[in-house]
Amino acid sequence: MSRFFSPKYASLEPYTPGEQPKEMQYVKLNTNESPFPPSEKAQREAAQAAMGLQLYSDPTCKKTTDALAKTLGVDSDEVLLTNGSDEILNFAFMAFCDPKTPAVFADITYGFYSVFAEINNLPSKIIPLKEDFTIDTSDYFAAGGTVFIANPNAPTGIALSRDQIEEILQKNPNNVVVIDEAYVDFGGESCVPLIKKYDNLLVTQTFSKSRSMAGARLGFGVGCKALIADLNAIKYSTNPYNVNSMTLAAGYGTLCDPEYTAKNCQTIMENREKTATALQKLGFEMTNSKTNFLFVKHPKLDGEALYLELKRRGILVRHFTASRISSYNRITVGTWEQMQTLIATIQSILEEQA
Amino acid sequence: MSRFFSPKYASLEPYTPGEQPKEMQYVKLNTNESPFPPSEKAQREAAQAAMGLQLYSDPTCKKTTDALAKTLGVDSDEVLLTNGSDEILNFAFMAFCDPKTPAVFADITYGFYSVFAEINNLPSKIIPLKEDFTIDTSDYFAAGGTVFIANPNAPTGIALSRDQIEEILQKNPNNVVVIDEAYVDFGGESCVPLIKKYDNLLVTQTFSKSRSMAGARLGFGVGCKALIADLNAIKYSTNPYNVNSMTLAAGYGTLCDPEYTAKNCQTIMENREKTATALQKLGFEMTNSKTNFLFVKHPKLDGEALYLELKRRGILVRHFTASRISSYNRITVGTWEQMQTLIATIQSILEEQA
Repeated sequence: MSRFFSPKYASLEPYTPGEQPKEMQYVKLNTNESPFPPSEKAQREAAQAAMGLQLYSDPTCKKTTDALAKTLGVDSDEVLLTNGSDEILNFAFMAFCDPKTPAVFADITYGFYSVFAEINNLPSKIIPLKEDFTIDTSDYFAAGGTVFIANPNAPTGIALSRDQIEEILQKNPNNVVVIDEAYVDFGGESCVPLIKKYDNLLVTQTFSKSRSMAGARLGFGVGCKALIADLNAIKYSTNPYNVNSMTLAAGYGTLCDPEYTAKNCQTIMENREKTATALQKLGFEMTNSKTNFLFVKHPKLDGEALYLELKRRGILVRHFTASRISSYNRITVGTWEQMQTLIATIQSILEEQA
Repeated sequence: MSRFFSPKYASLEPYTPGEQPKEMQYVKLNTNESPFPPSEKAQREAAQAAMGLQLYSDPTCKKTTDALAKTLGVDSDEVLLTNGSDEILNFAFMAFCDPKTPAVFADITYGFYSVFAEINNLPSKIIPLKEDFTIDTSDYFAAGGTVFIANPNAPTGIALSRDQIEEILQKNPNNVVVIDEAYVDFGGESCVPLIKKYDNLLVTQTFSKSRSMAGARLGFGVGCKALIADLNAIKYSTNPYNVNSMTLAAGYGTLCDPEYTAKNCQTIMENREKTATALQKLGFEMTNSKTNFLFVKHPKLDGEALYLELKRRGILVRHFTASRISSYNRITVGTWEQMQTLIATIQSILEEQA
């Protein structure tokens, strides 16, 4: 830290992204990426865009926004594209929280929420998950702040139904409720259809997981026109050209190829269920995941020890040190070949330990 | 604006980017883009990266950062890549200003500085340029805040020498001085070599202008290790994967092809001088531009009227309404063919008016 760094950030603890090691080739199951390449149409569109990079990207992101709005069944002015969904989430913290309107979120959820609150000097109200890691929706009735719920939640993988979210929306008519649907395409129920009914709902999603575009950085928010206008005011006050031309083109290409995305999601859900069954046979306990990852623990294996042993054997998974979940590991669902390697490796570890 | 928008932004006036009209094909001289496509190596690298978008981009941006540091003659931990240079500038406002440390900048300069101050709820100290639009460096001695100087300045195009900047650095030992060198490659003197000597210097640059990558969004800051660490803390607290894989690849490709960039800059400087001479013959007055644009006015033409008339005839230039500069237009220097079209069109306008 320099002697010039603003004292308002004295207690800032930046987010730690999952490891991206370069020293060797791992079976990489630690950052919930898709094992499938982006749609070929996305690749072609991006390569085409690369030839015209001398011109600024369209700050209104019109072509891709229109295509996305059509896909979602909403109007174009009800959507805002951003540089990954982290950006739309940060914009929501900026726009809809302040000293009198805290950010309200779970103790075990996407780790970035507390960082967004901190970087924006905002108060937080932390609501513990129940013992089984599910959300008690009544904890969010009259939440007294802007609610952030990852649905399905991370790293637990557990989903609330749309009806449950709707009740939270109804019980917080004077606060924005942000539903972060990064993982919704793997078996969750999206709340996008509710944006026409509730002016206090912002849904965020990403192209990083189901759409195989983590490296392109494309996220978005969906909400009523007035909420999107607020978020646009933030965008035009920080980075008007926030999404580059190649990413916009790749996003457009992906939206033109919905069958490919649907097929990949189907495969990942099947692999998840097969992997869950195999791990349960090996004695693992796990949450009911509606995502592209499993959240698992074993009565005979320490969470961190398993993570380290898998890493030593060439498989990366994600371990969190927070005490409530330190016995767990979050394992991304990849190809069936990757999952077979994982299962066999864990079996070896268990056998060697026995 | 929604009923939920935080009152802290009540007076926010977002930045207005230059027009990007879609309704017809203009000779586009309004946003200081390069008329030349990106290096072919950049295009190839980006297309290659598009094939692997399912994986997150490297949050440390290592390969491109290393190449850039080598180009600049600094260490890799003295550089931070961002999503355009707007992002590094915003990070600098966040990191180095606060209620007791205002942002100090000129009245006529990059219009985003005042927006960055506003969005971050920071006080500003505005220092008027002299009557001839030059900066009186003594106005910035003991500035009492974090100094932001665009050098060369926009939209005036006028540059300070490195020695002049060095004096400002010496006179502000306890405040950061940010030198925004977006246009430095067209005849300015970069202050990058000074970062080894002054721990209060942050230099920002962009790949948007001289490097033909406006659409890719790649900017960077150069400063001592401690300043870069501060800015990294902000990055990891807002958007750790702030630069996507394709942009990193295109940036790397561009850095591998410095001759192409140098040749384009040379051509643009030559076109600038030829255009300046031609416009002076037509009676225009102008500043001494060291950028890829000219800042011009004509004693017989109203600034806004000329802008509108050029637009009607298919040529876009940039007009600003601020009273001190409303008689001027900022004209991007493009290919010589574009400049000839501009000169001929202006000549017609003058003849028709005579």
